[in-house]
Amino acid sequence: MVIRHPLFVDNSRNEPSSVKQEGEGKILSTNTHSVVIVGYGGMGSYHAKLIANNTRLKVTGTYDILEERRKVSEEDGYPAYENYEAVLNDPAVDVILIATPNDVHKELVITALRHGKHVICEKPVTMFVKDFEEMMAVSEETGRVLMVHQNRRWDEDFLIIKEMYDKGMIGDLFQIESRVHGANGIPGDWRHLEAYGGGMLLDWGVHLLDQFVFMIDSRIKSVTSRLSFILGDEVDDGFEATLEFENGVTAIAEVGTTNFITLPRWYVKGTEGTAVIEDWSLKGRAVIQNREVGKVEPKPIKAGVGLTKTMAPPSEEATLTESLPEPFQHKSSFYDNFADVVEGEAEPIVKNNEVLRVLNLIENVFKAARTREVVKDFDIYEPKN
Amino acid sequence: MVIRHPLFVDNSRNEPSSVKQEGEGKILSTNTHSVVIVGYGGMGSYHAKLIANNTRLKVTGTYDILEERRKVSEEDGYPAYENYEAVLNDPAVDVILIATPNDVHKELVITALRHGKHVICEKPVTMFVKDFEEMMAVSEETGRVLMVHQNRRWDEDFLIIKEMYDKGMIGDLFQIESRVHGANGIPGDWRHLEAYGGGMLLDWGVHLLDQFVFMIDSRIKSVTSRLSFILGDEVDDGFEATLEFENGVTAIAEVGTTNFITLPRWYVKGTEGTAVIEDWSLKGRAVIQNREVGKVEPKPIKAGVGLTKTMAPPSEEATLTESLPEPFQHKSSFYDNFADVVEGEAEPIVKNNEVLRVLNLIENVFKAARTREVVKDFDIYEPKN
Repeated sequence: MVIRHPLFVDNSRNEPSSVKQEGEGKILSTNTHSVVIVGYGGMGSYHAKLIANNTRLKVTGTYDILEERRKVSEEDGYPAYENYEAVLNDPAVDVILIATPNDVHKELVITALRHGKHVICEKPVTMFVKDFEEMMAVSEETGRVLMVHQNRRWDEDFLIIKEMYDKGMIGDLFQIESRVHGANGIPGDWRHLEAYGGGMLLDWGVHLLDQFVFMIDSRIKSVTSRLSFILGDEVDDGFEATLEFENGVTAIAEVGTTNFITLPRWYVKGTEGTAVIEDWSLKGRAVIQNREVGKVEPKPIKAGVGLTKTMAPPSEEATLTESLPEPFQHKSSFYDNFADVVEGEAEPIVKNNEVLRVLNLIENVFKAARTREVVKDFDIYEPKN
Repeated sequence: MVIRHPLFVDNSRNEPSSVKQEGEGKILSTNTHSVVIVGYGGMGSYHAKLIANNTRLKVTGTYDILEERRKVSEEDGYPAYENYEAVLNDPAVDVILIATPNDVHKELVITALRHGKHVICEKPVTMFVKDFEEMMAVSEETGRVLMVHQNRRWDEDFLIIKEMYDKGMIGDLFQIESRVHGANGIPGDWRHLEAYGGGMLLDWGVHLLDQFVFMIDSRIKSVTSRLSFILGDEVDDGFEATLEFENGVTAIAEVGTTNFITLPRWYVKGTEGTAVIEDWSLKGRAVIQNREVGKVEPKPIKAGVGLTKTMAPPSEEATLTESLPEPFQHKSSFYDNFADVVEGEAEPIVKNNEVLRVLNLIENVFKAARTREVVKDFDIYEPKN
């Protein structure tokens, strides 16, 4: 589904050029889309910095309910609107970027769409499937683009794993463990309040689960999960979710904020080897079977009070250690893709039906944890083309 | 329950000395118990080596169904009996040690007990609760000792974690992850056949779960699990089981035989810190909150395409890195404890009701994996005194 912005329809472009279709080239757009950032906190100001380096979008202002943040915005060089109405009614504004707490996304997004604005919305776009369904319906009805900022689809660590998944470098991946560990607790803002959509499942979980859903083209058969409430907050300070896909892949997402020692960011097992990415520095390796060498019996090792051959390291000649592959390359950045979608030139990389699927998954992760049951037959999977 | 061997009852010892009761001293026994090892394979011959260093037990012979192994035994200096009957009917034999494949444990053990022998049996003692119940009943009826060789209760890595659990060095442990990873597949013997009680849940799982049950004095509320069948064997080549205890502890046991890179042997989270034991070499550390320093805000780090303060490492002054504690000390070794129990001088460290509890747990780990359900209300827990 390509959503075309009526203001930018250019008939000569209704058929994308063959160069573009093959993803080898880039049509340089001369359009610049003016963006107003609503919610000029940590993420809002981070967007401003990133968009400053983008040629297709330009931040022309911000709006924040806090006087203090409006002042920071002015100091950063972005005029601060006095209220949301003023943003909505400014005909010079093409795009509204929502970076507020999660509980007000829905209202702000729907109002923006109804005022003819395209919208980028921070994640999680909403806490519930039904809210996002309403937002999607308004986007369809108004013909305005709504794209959710699932930016961690562009994380290099994830894209290395995606490349391994797609290309079978260590055989078929069948176990994918994705962990994000910190020891700083939940950030001391709205993220530790339930009414604002706080908690780590909604904050980081939405990224880790979105990465799985983007990479693994298969229906989720079941989910089990546990939420952690170690810090005494009303929202989860971490969680673990295990997803079983119909294609045989098991994917584990784990987020912790009370981990003084971290486990690897990624640990993946394939039919021919194992790979690890230790941390955000992308330090890692793959160890694979050496096919040129037959089965080599390992030497038993002393393990605790026993001997074990099963758990001995494979003999040295039986394996090869490889460096990790280059990451998968998206056709464009998040912002460029957004501009392309607005101009009717591309499919969104972050598709709303995928975002909806992740929200539905999150609802079922909560359900699995709260009921302590394995939840099955819930996935609203649509095969990719 | 102290089981007293009629042959060794010494009235002067019916009341253990106060020194012994406080566990500070050791009565040096002059008794030597003759042991015949039945099943002189990998484990059987390993027992012979260990018992050679023990003053209370003495291996006086072996029996194996394979001519080849009988020959090895003779070469090792242990006379090989021609058949099991000969062992059973030899009045010089006090103890029979069973180290055969799992499927024949029950018959061999019961026959031994009925012939007046005390028995040490390899783990898993049986595949099913009901079989072990029968064996326990015969032990009670005959007054002969039956003790299962859950030797990994003496593993130093485990005893370090147990010491941390008991003493609260990093606060109360609430998450205990115990992993054993190899890349050599299932050993190429009966352990890859279902009829013999093969598979990694029965082989290594029985140890990891036994360690949990020995350490954590609380009822298990629920278990979830997955078995792995990557290698195409008829038995599991690995598994993951998550146990939730009533006291709030979550314990995860994971065994893999297709892991070319290993995750840490132990990863444990406490209310004040995290600890890790990397591998059998016992390399590890604990990282704890520095209570002398107030809350120190970490600096945000670049993580993928985003910034994160939540997942930034804690600022350096906010934590302390400690070395791991000395391991918990059992009052005696497995063999000495067995001799003490035979002589009516001690409670068994490996109690049969605990072994039964682990077998029941294993049955429910299988059930949870096969049904893909969370299994609850199954635990046959008895609080320790």
